[in-house]
Amino acid sequence: MAQYVIGVDYGTDSARAVVVDSADGRILGKSVSLYPRWKKGLYCDARLNQWRQHPLDYLEVLESSVKDALSQCPSDVPSQVVGIAFDTTGSTPCFIDRDGTPLAMLPEFADNPDAMFILWKDHTAILEAEEINEACKRSKVDYSKYEGGIYSSEWFWAKALHILRSSPEVAAKAYSIVEHCEWMPAILTGTTKPHEIVRSRCAQGHKSMWNEEWGGLPPEDFLAGIDPLLAGYRERLFDRTETADKPVGMLCPEWAERLGLPTSVVVAGGAFDCHMGAVGAGVAPHTLVRVIGTSTCDVMVASYEEIGNKCIRGICGQVDGSVIPGMVGLEAGQSSFGDVYAMWRRMLEWPIRQFAGLDDNALEEIHSKIFPVLNEAAAAMPISESTMVATDWINGRRTPDANPLLQGTIAGFTLGTNPVRVYRALVESTAFGTKAISDRFAEEGIRIDSVIGVGGIAQKSPFVMQTMADVLGKPIKVSKSDQVCALGAAMFAATAAGVYGKVEDASAAMNSGFLCEYIPVPENTEAYWELYGKYLKLGDFTEKQIFVK
Amino acid sequence: MAQYVIGVDYGTDSARAVVVDSADGRILGKSVSLYPRWKKGLYCDARLNQWRQHPLDYLEVLESSVKDALSQCPSDVPSQVVGIAFDTTGSTPCFIDRDGTPLAMLPEFADNPDAMFILWKDHTAILEAEEINEACKRSKVDYSKYEGGIYSSEWFWAKALHILRSSPEVAAKAYSIVEHCEWMPAILTGTTKPHEIVRSRCAQGHKSMWNEEWGGLPPEDFLAGIDPLLAGYRERLFDRTETADKPVGMLCPEWAERLGLPTSVVVAGGAFDCHMGAVGAGVAPHTLVRVIGTSTCDVMVASYEEIGNKCIRGICGQVDGSVIPGMVGLEAGQSSFGDVYAMWRRMLEWPIRQFAGLDDNALEEIHSKIFPVLNEAAAAMPISESTMVATDWINGRRTPDANPLLQGTIAGFTLGTNPVRVYRALVESTAFGTKAISDRFAEEGIRIDSVIGVGGIAQKSPFVMQTMADVLGKPIKVSKSDQVCALGAAMFAATAAGVYGKVEDASAAMNSGFLCEYIPVPENTEAYWELYGKYLKLGDFTEKQIFVK
Repeated sequence: MAQYVIGVDYGTDSARAVVVDSADGRILGKSVSLYPRWKKGLYCDARLNQWRQHPLDYLEVLESSVKDALSQCPSDVPSQVVGIAFDTTGSTPCFIDRDGTPLAMLPEFADNPDAMFILWKDHTAILEAEEINEACKRSKVDYSKYEGGIYSSEWFWAKALHILRSSPEVAAKAYSIVEHCEWMPAILTGTTKPHEIVRSRCAQGHKSMWNEEWGGLPPEDFLAGIDPLLAGYRERLFDRTETADKPVGMLCPEWAERLGLPTSVVVAGGAFDCHMGAVGAGVAPHTLVRVIGTSTCDVMVASYEEIGNKCIRGICGQVDGSVIPGMVGLEAGQSSFGDVYAMWRRMLEWPIRQFAGLDDNALEEIHSKIFPVLNEAAAAMPISESTMVATDWINGRRTPDANPLLQGTIAGFTLGTNPVRVYRALVESTAFGTKAISDRFAEEGIRIDSVIGVGGIAQKSPFVMQTMADVLGKPIKVSKSDQVCALGAAMFAATAAGVYGKVEDASAAMNSGFLCEYIPVPENTEAYWELYGKYLKLGDFTEKQIFVK
Repeated sequence: MAQYVIGVDYGTDSARAVVVDSADGRILGKSVSLYPRWKKGLYCDARLNQWRQHPLDYLEVLESSVKDALSQCPSDVPSQVVGIAFDTTGSTPCFIDRDGTPLAMLPEFADNPDAMFILWKDHTAILEAEEINEACKRSKVDYSKYEGGIYSSEWFWAKALHILRSSPEVAAKAYSIVEHCEWMPAILTGTTKPHEIVRSRCAQGHKSMWNEEWGGLPPEDFLAGIDPLLAGYRERLFDRTETADKPVGMLCPEWAERLGLPTSVVVAGGAFDCHMGAVGAGVAPHTLVRVIGTSTCDVMVASYEEIGNKCIRGICGQVDGSVIPGMVGLEAGQSSFGDVYAMWRRMLEWPIRQFAGLDDNALEEIHSKIFPVLNEAAAAMPISESTMVATDWINGRRTPDANPLLQGTIAGFTLGTNPVRVYRALVESTAFGTKAISDRFAEEGIRIDSVIGVGGIAQKSPFVMQTMADVLGKPIKVSKSDQVCALGAAMFAATAAGVYGKVEDASAAMNSGFLCEYIPVPENTEAYWELYGKYLKLGDFTEKQIFVK
């Protein structure tokens, strides 16, 4: 009898579900649903960098996308589903009450953004992150040391503290906090007691300073010392975390009915999208997996021997088992990648929208043409004409050495500068940002031999990918699947359900293979490395002299 | 009987002639003509920064514009014209043969760009300028010291040497060299012997290192030491120069006939456009006159007492009598000003041209709308939102401390950056470039109390002008006339013809007055000066670290 598994991937704007044959990774059904409230822009404020998602958005799209994906399969498939797993964005925490319910699910908090999930990219907690960093540097033990040594405003405690300060009504009702990737398995297994929620090694190890070295979360006096508002949370949260290959429980009757699945389905642990995506793409030691979208999430694994007792400086965390159990998972990333190009496209669309008097269809058609035209023209430029130099920090910098205050710089404007030259400089800047990450890993003793690219930009932009390969001087393979994160979740579902003994085996059997490989051109690498020297200088100068408060 | 004078202003793209009543400056006729060959792009190469103008262009537009301007006047005016004067761009030199003829006027050189006038903005002589600078620094006397201490690739000797090296056929035929502003009076007075050409104090004092301190041009051994190709030129050029208020001679019969004027017309000496324009605008000690176009030319005068024996560092020259006889004329400038905004407008027009599918009329209409829309939106932004910082060196830097290798930089791109924010930063950058010039004069002991703005941008862009006044912290008056250079030339014509004893008297009687005055807002000045600190830092860094060969 066949054994099917379901992977559900919660991205920033939508969720997608895939129904997969656990024997070979064949996808029988897939479905994407946009979050209904998010799509309308509710609860968000771009000016404040406030990005919130309502828990009902998550539940509604779960039901619609899983049912739709199943409806595409032969009718005997649902009864043969053996496992389901979730990956989500993160850190995306939410306050819950004593019954484990996200506060926004309660009528009195239904429209309160502070009672919802605080999306990974919400930057309202910059001040709180600074205070946490100061506390870490003051403390005898630097509890941020396994998270790169710089605690981010995008992470668990900074967001929690910001809400507790700014929303007394939420603070009064809140009992504990849950990450999105923990809440989904809890919901599906019918878990209602906060202490019984299975905690994600991936989420908590990378974002809440959980580490076995100090027996779990940082100690109570450290947390309460940052602000008494945090007092008591450690006790009400958790000591233990689990890797995502372990079952959390079985599908509860309510959700079995809502999804049209048997209650024998095993629900796996949750993890972040890029971590499961890395497994979906075939991560292994010395291979960097990059999920390349508006930003990048870069994931590696290292053996205990390679990592030794090193704390890798300035990355987004190193956590035992956060990607593959039995190895140390390492996370890094660029806080803007596709967003850099999108910024420039928006710049170029502005005049058309302002002046050309075109209707929405015509504008949409032009929108779809801009990148192809820019890519073709930029690719035709010889490297010797790359005289501009730019930094890629238009949304701050995540790795190496997170700094949310940074902004982008473009140097080298002349009388003849045109949009193609600027675009080429921006593409180079994002490749230089990649090299800065790769170089940091190398400096810290973590060797990168090759790269796997995942996502739309990797699949659709040869110019961007060839530039990246040339700048890195390393080959880049591109994953064939356009659902790598959901496929990775399906691999965890298959492992949790016992189809495979470990996720590496699931990955070997179920992976989708590669679409193509970009091989670096040595002469280009040499030319780019000279320009990279200017990127580093320009970045260092603007960080120290221009983008300071 | 009335006494009329004609001022002819040779700009970069066109020449204009004005017929003026010398009693009160009233303009009776004016006419603008485009250079026919230049308009077609002949003899130029933007990629090489090669900009050449054919001498026939100058003669043809002279005839057409003077005759057209006269045709607008009552019929008795031509016979009552008493003087004519010319201002031109510069340094715009041309090789001449033994008969004083520009080589391109000879059939065998008719299409040879190296035999034509080398327009001020031609940058083909960068290497030669460097060699001249090195020679000046090696020499016991630094012959560049009255030209700011940095010899530019836009100037006389650099251009001459470049042509002599790259064009042996021109070198073989060449006897001497003439500046455009010297050739026009020579032509109109029928001067054919190179030694009889009256040399311009303004042109030669500012561009060829002519100075009374060393008895004229730099000595033969200095010039031949730079390159033996320059040997003998000093002897074949000149020792003396004259201020432009002095008559060069009377109109020769041939040109009297061609222009429809009597041979009694006095032809005045020539000078550069901005220098005569400064007189036209009412220059006086402690008042900086800025001719603001694609670039700026900044002119001041200082009394002998104020200037003492100082050599002002890093400007474009200080020359006794180059502006007003009896005072020291000082020149400075920004090598791009309106060009900075034009670069950005071209960037914003690119997508419309590429994608919108509009006809030329529609494109032209949009072209005319972009600046008004940008100005309105940028002016509406509060100063607190000026978080970007840019440098204005998209065509190198002229003053302070000329450096043709510099390029522009824009810092502060975020996810939300739009074209208006960039435009505002660019406007601020040009105002900061103005302040850098003003500060240099102040550091060197030349006080600036107020500014007079001349030209299209001064008259038509209140946002740019108010920003400049705020950044400088000084009031700026705007000249009413849109023909200030030609009007200034008319003042010199009136003085040379003896209507006035000195140009100051002509200026007092014939000036056009002011259109408006921009008063700085003290709070804005304070805020801008903080941003100016970042402009200086960003400029210093990019000059030393990024834009180096």
